[in-house]
Amino acid sequence: MTAADLVLHGARLLTVAPLKDERPRVGPAAGDVGALMDGFVAARDGAIVATGHGVAHEAVERVDGAVDVDVQGRVVMPGFIDPHTHLCYAGERWEEFATRRSGADYLAVLAAGGGIHATVRATRDATDDQLLTLLMRRIGDAAELGTTTIEVKSGYGLEPDEELRQLRLLARAKADAPIDVAVTYLAAHALPAPYTDDRKRFIREVMNAIAIVANENLAEAVDAFVEKGVFDIDDVRPLFTAAKKAGLAVTMHADQLNDVGASAFAARAHARSADHVARASAEGIRALARAEVPGYAPPDARRFISARVPVALASDHNPGTSPLEGMPTAIALGVTLCGLTPHEAIVAATINAAHALGRGGRIGALIPGRRADIVVLDSDDERELAYRMGAPLIAEVYASGRRVA
Amino acid sequence: MTAADLVLHGARLLTVAPLKDERPRVGPAAGDVGALMDGFVAARDGAIVATGHGVAHEAVERVDGAVDVDVQGRVVMPGFIDPHTHLCYAGERWEEFATRRSGADYLAVLAAGGGIHATVRATRDATDDQLLTLLMRRIGDAAELGTTTIEVKSGYGLEPDEELRQLRLLARAKADAPIDVAVTYLAAHALPAPYTDDRKRFIREVMNAIAIVANENLAEAVDAFVEKGVFDIDDVRPLFTAAKKAGLAVTMHADQLNDVGASAFAARAHARSADHVARASAEGIRALARAEVPGYAPPDARRFISARVPVALASDHNPGTSPLEGMPTAIALGVTLCGLTPHEAIVAATINAAHALGRGGRIGALIPGRRADIVVLDSDDERELAYRMGAPLIAEVYASGRRVA
Repeated sequence: MTAADLVLHGARLLTVAPLKDERPRVGPAAGDVGALMDGFVAARDGAIVATGHGVAHEAVERVDGAVDVDVQGRVVMPGFIDPHTHLCYAGERWEEFATRRSGADYLAVLAAGGGIHATVRATRDATDDQLLTLLMRRIGDAAELGTTTIEVKSGYGLEPDEELRQLRLLARAKADAPIDVAVTYLAAHALPAPYTDDRKRFIREVMNAIAIVANENLAEAVDAFVEKGVFDIDDVRPLFTAAKKAGLAVTMHADQLNDVGASAFAARAHARSADHVARASAEGIRALARAEVPGYAPPDARRFISARVPVALASDHNPGTSPLEGMPTAIALGVTLCGLTPHEAIVAATINAAHALGRGGRIGALIPGRRADIVVLDSDDERELAYRMGAPLIAEVYASGRRVA
Repeated sequence: MTAADLVLHGARLLTVAPLKDERPRVGPAAGDVGALMDGFVAARDGAIVATGHGVAHEAVERVDGAVDVDVQGRVVMPGFIDPHTHLCYAGERWEEFATRRSGADYLAVLAAGGGIHATVRATRDATDDQLLTLLMRRIGDAAELGTTTIEVKSGYGLEPDEELRQLRLLARAKADAPIDVAVTYLAAHALPAPYTDDRKRFIREVMNAIAIVANENLAEAVDAFVEKGVFDIDDVRPLFTAAKKAGLAVTMHADQLNDVGASAFAARAHARSADHVARASAEGIRALARAEVPGYAPPDARRFISARVPVALASDHNPGTSPLEGMPTAIALGVTLCGLTPHEAIVAATINAAHALGRGGRIGALIPGRRADIVVLDSDDERELAYRMGAPLIAEVYASGRRVA
């Protein structure tokens, strides 16, 4: 008989179970959430041990002190996965946010020392303790909103030494966090001033840093901002080669503002994900679909759904451009602004986001063997996540089987 | 010595205090939140008795059992006022919401018996108990998100008898609600089928219903949807005359989809507010400004700010078009989509919204004599309401001095 220390029953259970193989959901299946009525999920020692429906949960033995909840018809679903954030920063850019909303141009803001420069300064100036406190608070806020796995990038250090400091802090945050943190080294975000005349030296030093990151196990992946006037594919190619040789995954900010062929490059590089992709060409989209590289829902997400690109959603929480916190808001905006259906948005925020972090076989679905990362909604219809933007819908959050919110 | 049963001190206090007279905030003052550092607010028996800063709060005597909180630098501000909602409905329109997001035309939805017709059917079919339960849940959700005064319209009955049933239920909800409810009779929302060939008879019967509403004290205001193909100004004029004669305020859905001159009509009729106003002409905008009739922030809110129209924000929570819950989301969207500054959005959600409900002298500001409707944010900067869309920022909510969330 199966024994469990956590049983949630009487649920509208969204299993988001694999359809036939461990691949992201695409095309007509992109909205398949695998719902079970009167369902249950049972877990032990942080892993799911059984799911099913009806009275079958009575056959699960409860160990002493087990948590046993009749959720009374509410939705039980996989914890959200936020696969793209820039949480590691100090300082806020409220003024800039307000002036840009009233029409100020970003380049003018940059020229005045604002924009990313302001965040880089404030983050460098923050002490280890200050940065760690900010990180832990932001990760905790995400957990409260139902996120059980969150990617966090470095990237506001720019210079390799400062990036390494931030990555070491991220490793400490990861060790203490109530939820799983996937750390990414955003190695090429903007060319720091001391390297303006020697881009090659910057690339060489980043390659050294990648070796240190891999040795000290500071990150799972290397990210780069491939964009006109920032870094081009030739800059990034040696970094990705070094990353893969060191056993790290690669991922990219690709074709966000201009089509620079980055989506096709991401496909060729077997990137873990291609992020933003708002300007990807038809050819870039086809390449992502063929390589099954998850792309992040842009404003015209239906182009990607039709082309069978696995679509993921992320908060992209960052101090400059994304006034967005938590995956329920990302889901609501994914539907209202990007044209996803509510169920496609839920898939994009669970199993497809898991694939975008290389965790497709471990999280993002409620089936035996997966980590017991579970959200209970205060609703019997998961579509409320899309429909009731801003409503307090997250009732309970379990990470590795432990209640965290 | 002043005695208080509630003292919040150590606050960044947004008083949103009147600048010199009891008028809504317009033009350059539209973003003036009247902030006090190290501020306090003291209340007794549900009304504010003192505000100030520094150690002055020590001079306030605490009665036995008084709540006395050092908020440690967090923001203390007036409770939000949501001046336009359609909460009184049964049935959800998730399917329609999803199909419309994927491009389906509203007129096609209507022709298939969906749209407002679906809500009217479901609301008519709901029992009194069912409707009351839904209403109380929705009002409670609003309170959790910091709303301390909420307008609720009838309007899904269409036929006068059914509208009266819904208004009587709203009166019961108002009596039991933890926050203040301002009830509006949306008398002319759509012409019900039995009156298709006799619009005049419908108007006559609505006039009778208005008399009943006034006699039984079922609503504070009468609302009408003035729009091409729905009701025109000539239909609505006798209704407004009857309403005002009966002592009720009037308010309008004005120039929402087409400019039909409704904003200027609202100004002439001294309407409590002119809602939506997205298509208002320059002349309509000038008329609203002259008459100081609050308009609701449309996508191009700056046009209204420059013209000195008092701008208010509302959730417009309704089952068809507004996937929006709670004023923090309304504030964030008011900034991101409508171009308000964060402080203008806060004014629009407090004192200007109070004026839109004819309560400008009673709520929406933290000064002695006002009702003790207070929100404590989980932040020391109120601009986070605009910046961190979806973040859990509401720490404590007091309505008439009592903690409700």
